[in-house]
Amino acid sequence: MTNELQTRAINTIRFLSADAVQQANSGHPGLPMGTAAMAYTLWTRHLRHNPRNPKWAGRDRFILSGGHGSMLLYSLLHLTGYDLALDEIKNFRQFESRTPGHPEYGLTPGVETTTGPLGQGFATGVGMAIAATQLAATFNKPDHEIIQSRIFGIVTDGDLMEGVSSEAASLAGHLQLGRIIYLYDDNHISIDGSTELAFTEDRCARFEAYHWHVQRVEDGNDVEAIDAAIEAAIADPRPSLIAVRTTIGYGSPNRQGTSKAHGEPLGDEELNAAKDNLDWPKEPRFLIPGDVLEFYRDAVEQGREREAEWTQRVEEYKNAYPELGAEFQRRMDGLLPQGWDAKLPSFPADAKGMATRTSSGKVLDYLSAQLPELIGGSADLTPSNNTKFKEAGDFEKDNPGGRYMHFGVREHAMGAALNGLNLFGGLIAYGGTFLVFSDYMKPAIRIAALSRIPSVFVFTHDSVGLGEDGPTHQPIEHLMALRAVPYLTVIRPADANEVAQAWKIAISHRNGPYAFALTRQNVPTLEETNANMVEKGAYVLKDFGEPEVILMASGSEVGLIMEAAKQLSAEGHGVRVVSFPSWELFELQEEAYRESVLPKQITARLAVEAGATLGWDRYATSVIGLDHYGASAPYKVIFERFGFTVENVVARAKDLIS
Amino acid sequence: MTNELQTRAINTIRFLSADAVQQANSGHPGLPMGTAAMAYTLWTRHLRHNPRNPKWAGRDRFILSGGHGSMLLYSLLHLTGYDLALDEIKNFRQFESRTPGHPEYGLTPGVETTTGPLGQGFATGVGMAIAATQLAATFNKPDHEIIQSRIFGIVTDGDLMEGVSSEAASLAGHLQLGRIIYLYDDNHISIDGSTELAFTEDRCARFEAYHWHVQRVEDGNDVEAIDAAIEAAIADPRPSLIAVRTTIGYGSPNRQGTSKAHGEPLGDEELNAAKDNLDWPKEPRFLIPGDVLEFYRDAVEQGREREAEWTQRVEEYKNAYPELGAEFQRRMDGLLPQGWDAKLPSFPADAKGMATRTSSGKVLDYLSAQLPELIGGSADLTPSNNTKFKEAGDFEKDNPGGRYMHFGVREHAMGAALNGLNLFGGLIAYGGTFLVFSDYMKPAIRIAALSRIPSVFVFTHDSVGLGEDGPTHQPIEHLMALRAVPYLTVIRPADANEVAQAWKIAISHRNGPYAFALTRQNVPTLEETNANMVEKGAYVLKDFGEPEVILMASGSEVGLIMEAAKQLSAEGHGVRVVSFPSWELFELQEEAYRESVLPKQITARLAVEAGATLGWDRYATSVIGLDHYGASAPYKVIFERFGFTVENVVARAKDLIS
Repeated sequence: MTNELQTRAINTIRFLSADAVQQANSGHPGLPMGTAAMAYTLWTRHLRHNPRNPKWAGRDRFILSGGHGSMLLYSLLHLTGYDLALDEIKNFRQFESRTPGHPEYGLTPGVETTTGPLGQGFATGVGMAIAATQLAATFNKPDHEIIQSRIFGIVTDGDLMEGVSSEAASLAGHLQLGRIIYLYDDNHISIDGSTELAFTEDRCARFEAYHWHVQRVEDGNDVEAIDAAIEAAIADPRPSLIAVRTTIGYGSPNRQGTSKAHGEPLGDEELNAAKDNLDWPKEPRFLIPGDVLEFYRDAVEQGREREAEWTQRVEEYKNAYPELGAEFQRRMDGLLPQGWDAKLPSFPADAKGMATRTSSGKVLDYLSAQLPELIGGSADLTPSNNTKFKEAGDFEKDNPGGRYMHFGVREHAMGAALNGLNLFGGLIAYGGTFLVFSDYMKPAIRIAALSRIPSVFVFTHDSVGLGEDGPTHQPIEHLMALRAVPYLTVIRPADANEVAQAWKIAISHRNGPYAFALTRQNVPTLEETNANMVEKGAYVLKDFGEPEVILMASGSEVGLIMEAAKQLSAEGHGVRVVSFPSWELFELQEEAYRESVLPKQITARLAVEAGATLGWDRYATSVIGLDHYGASAPYKVIFERFGFTVENVVARAKDLIS
Repeated sequence: MTNELQTRAINTIRFLSADAVQQANSGHPGLPMGTAAMAYTLWTRHLRHNPRNPKWAGRDRFILSGGHGSMLLYSLLHLTGYDLALDEIKNFRQFESRTPGHPEYGLTPGVETTTGPLGQGFATGVGMAIAATQLAATFNKPDHEIIQSRIFGIVTDGDLMEGVSSEAASLAGHLQLGRIIYLYDDNHISIDGSTELAFTEDRCARFEAYHWHVQRVEDGNDVEAIDAAIEAAIADPRPSLIAVRTTIGYGSPNRQGTSKAHGEPLGDEELNAAKDNLDWPKEPRFLIPGDVLEFYRDAVEQGREREAEWTQRVEEYKNAYPELGAEFQRRMDGLLPQGWDAKLPSFPADAKGMATRTSSGKVLDYLSAQLPELIGGSADLTPSNNTKFKEAGDFEKDNPGGRYMHFGVREHAMGAALNGLNLFGGLIAYGGTFLVFSDYMKPAIRIAALSRIPSVFVFTHDSVGLGEDGPTHQPIEHLMALRAVPYLTVIRPADANEVAQAWKIAISHRNGPYAFALTRQNVPTLEETNANMVEKGAYVLKDFGEPEVILMASGSEVGLIMEAAKQLSAEGHGVRVVSFPSWELFELQEEAYRESVLPKQITARLAVEAGATLGWDRYATSVIGLDHYGASAPYKVIFERFGFTVENVVARAKDLIS
């Protein structure tokens, strides 16, 4: 192609984006205009993708971590032939368009992950790179490299400032995830103004300290220099950061290089001036010159060929390694092995019982043997979270086939990496920390929920029942905070059998993220629990006579209300005991079922849960909970002092009855 | 003193700590045993404090960022003569002791901030250093240096792995906060095992990239080397990190240098072996040799002298600068200037109105002029959060008297820094971001709540009403998640006058943290709002006849229910309209008041809030809310599509009435 065509191809991205922002009268022209050349270089020379099959398993992943620059991505998707019509571009930021303000996974073909909240894309890509590396180690054979995916990204100042990207970069460097190649839009501007105001660290030196391969490109419009840097990054075994010095809003004569170019339309006048400045016709808006479109649309044929070539390779692989080939196909299809849950552990009733984190560990031992796609880890709380299954090998740079992740004390990066692992395909990823530290990874949990990513968050030490570590480590508000997150399913199992079922549900459904709340302390394995009923969310454990009162609880408090019910029954009261492991699952049930568990006419309803009471009014008329922080003491003392005793439950239930 | 006494003084810390952990049968011996020598060096040679007046304004601050090593701090506090008796040490981790599992501010004298959740101490210290720097620039005069405080800390691998410390370190380096001197307990061990498992970045190079002064001490027991490094750190104008190579659990023959030494008691046998190993008597437990105690207790007299000398300096300062001196005294006493709120802005009724973020900005313009102690900032959303008051100078390394902080895209570090700023004394600090990004700083919000730190979190763009930025930026679950946090007061004002009052409440009370939820979009300034009633949490805006139904709402939905009420009234219905800016404040009111606002006999109660419905069952029988994510579109379209219309409110209210 000619230089002239190349320049117009790059300017097409700029003005398609700026025009869409202008039409929406809302959005961010600065990033697309500043990074058009690097995006052009990456997408036309390096990114291996198939616009007509955005889910092609052999593709590279592209992440726009600075999601506010969404029009860059939408422009690229439209130009290279994805199913994203020009009308969608014209409908940028309108209700029910496929071009929302920030890219949303699942809504727009070709969007690999939801971005916008800064740092998430960066860290999610680290998870994708772990996935690609682990799968490559599992499946690739000499001369049969079926997994070659690289993770490309465009990352911004904001991404690099966020702590989550520091965590993720440190982890990526540690693991030497060479598949990562991030182009850093080094434009010296953030919303408040120059990066001189708040961000003067030596970014390149910082990434070198993480053991990344770091390069600089001095001119963000120098396609050949960017191209050469990407080539060098591909050749280097380390994760790569390419700091490209760009000009935000490049082309806009009065706004480029300033924060004014960042987050608002240029305005008709300035937009026209920018077009003049870059020799672009002012009209029509949304101009895509025919030869430019033809050039970009080459991606369709290239993608078709690439996928065909890859499919051929996979066929050869299947011939050479039939078992592995079948396994690869199963994994890519997202199917579970037949009978994977046939021997799911069940646990005999046992008054001493065990902590639900312990039974979770036992279930994982079983599952990991059935499901080679299971990969898990912990944010440096492995012995506490019981997340490490038997014979798990550590995933490390010298052992890339390992299935256990030491994420380090990096909950936030763990959360985002789990999302990336689950997005990539072929793996089922979970990760553990204490429930109280769900706060540290909340933004990643939200991305999972918003995008329906089936990450499994294993939160142990789920109440003041953790004991001596005290209030800093004792969750109070966390269960309710998680329940308030749309599309996140929270399960707090009462005992070992409910735990097994929680895992079964999370692994079977894969329709969104799951959060488990598990105890540190032992809880009895109850005769009355019915694992099969966990998926109902709440169910009747036992009726003692004709119920005058309903006692309901989740997790460690279920054993307590069962004891209280026995006493109430002994005193002649009719009591219903309800195990309530999951609000979300219960609320999915039909009204008739819900009414059968919690009949309206029984208005004496006591909920018992060692956490915030806010929210329980939905089901209960009275709550024994905690609307204050915990205490540092042996857990039995804490429960006693805070009213989690048979006596108190009995007394409160009697109050309700009378 | 002799080397022999010094060694015994250091070993006293080790074994007092290990004995307490053993007695509690719970806790972390590894950190105190490993860092005893550096703590000894810092506390006996550098830390300027007064054990008999832990609140002495001229003191240095000491932060144990690795709060799990709490016994180190408790040992130091007891030994140097704070009001923390040996019985408290013996009661380590017991109910209602002053020695909880992790240090809690407000509970134990000498604990400067709550730590345990990793990274929080590190980042809170950055806020304290900003405070000291800003106050020094404001008050210090040549030859009258009344503010000299340094911020010392012990930080751990876990602290450095957490993203919040990366954010805070980058900010501290940018601002060149030379008052920070952190000793890094470089012990090569985390809970999962060796740091080789997950943390192999070059920490020192990373901190150099942040423009810190970095030193290494190769032997964690080398008091003179540590001492020299601290001296050099004090002399250097940059923030300092001193990486001290230590051995976790130093002295324990079979556990030192392994993760076994981290988080569990050594056990009697190993504890005895450790005592043998370091020539320490096995009995009695909790041994403090007389000469060692005498040596440490020297801190009492030294502290008294230091404070007396400082008080003398302050007196001289007051003589030389009477006005500034009086102002300094007022600020240190935490008193507000008389009449500060006399001319608090009030806003005339106005149907067009303004966004509550805008009125908040106007109120800040007023407050900042009245309150020189007000210091605020934003996590790089200044023009969106309206957090910058008129004529605010930026706090920068070349302008340390500035009162506006550019925190960068670092919400988490901002949250922790706000806590440090407010803990230091003499300042009232607030910071802004979007409500959805409260997730990014949740752990810092929790520390504020747990410790009753009066940080003011200004969260704008508080609903789907932010419009086109779409679901990634639209809070849904956040209001409820924040309401579930004990001791955090959430205020979502309905209009400009309620905004003014929210600020007045937060600044007058200073009894814990506040979170404001403010709109991006315009809301009417209502005739009916009564600023004085905001502190009641909820109040009757207007009764239209004898109420058959109560409509209640917060924030931007108050204007909507008022319109709906007018229509219902026009159709002959009796309606009460309740503005509900703060659940927490309402729940502080007496039952009689609450009953007067929401009389039990009116069971038709409709709550309208553009957020999760979970929780509203406490007050309402029906809710118009959002239990799904938002949409990218102009906000009026969103509100209409999601049922936030007069028509829908009227229809739902009629359903309830009938």
